Amino acid sequence: MKYNVEVKISLKKGMLNPEASTIQRALALLGYNVHETDTIDIVKFSMDEDSEELVKNEVEDMCQRLLCNPVIHDYMIDINPQED
Amino acid sequence: MKYNVEVKISLKKGMLNPEASTIQRALALLGYNVHETDTIDIVKFSMDEDSEELVKNEVEDMCQRLLCNPVIHDYMIDINPQED
Repeated sequence: MKYNVEVKISLKKGMLNPEASTIQRALALLGYNVHETDTIDIVKFSMDEDSEELVKNEVEDMCQRLLCNPVIHDYMIDINPQED
Repeated sequence: MKYNVEVKISLKKGMLNPEASTIQRALALLGYNVHETDTIDIVKFSMDEDSEELVKNEVEDMCQRLLCNPVIHDYMIDINPQED
């Protein structure tokens, strides 16, 4: 069965986010006053597997091994069966 | 009033996504068979404004001027009043 997978990757609370602070400073230079800027990356893909459980285990593995750095990142996995 | 703003930025359909294809190839090297890999960036921040309409206009402006490249990116703006 085909599954759509979405992995949301964000920096852990308290981690310095240079990308977000650069965006906030650049917006301020353009005259926009924003606060608490943060960035999140989403990786989306589809996978063929027999069960959602198998997909979940494999994606956890992918996060640990490639997609995230477990020391500085938090991640959330969202799995949905693909409608044919 | 304070508003939470979330801007979802993705490449337009048909655009080459080197980041996504690199992720897909790297996952394949690790033995994971995934398809249709895509990436989305989210920028989140909070803003003080008198109305949601004003926030929407300002954020549209930010997208056009800084956050996105309208030629290659699609973007979606999500605005929610911040509960005190």
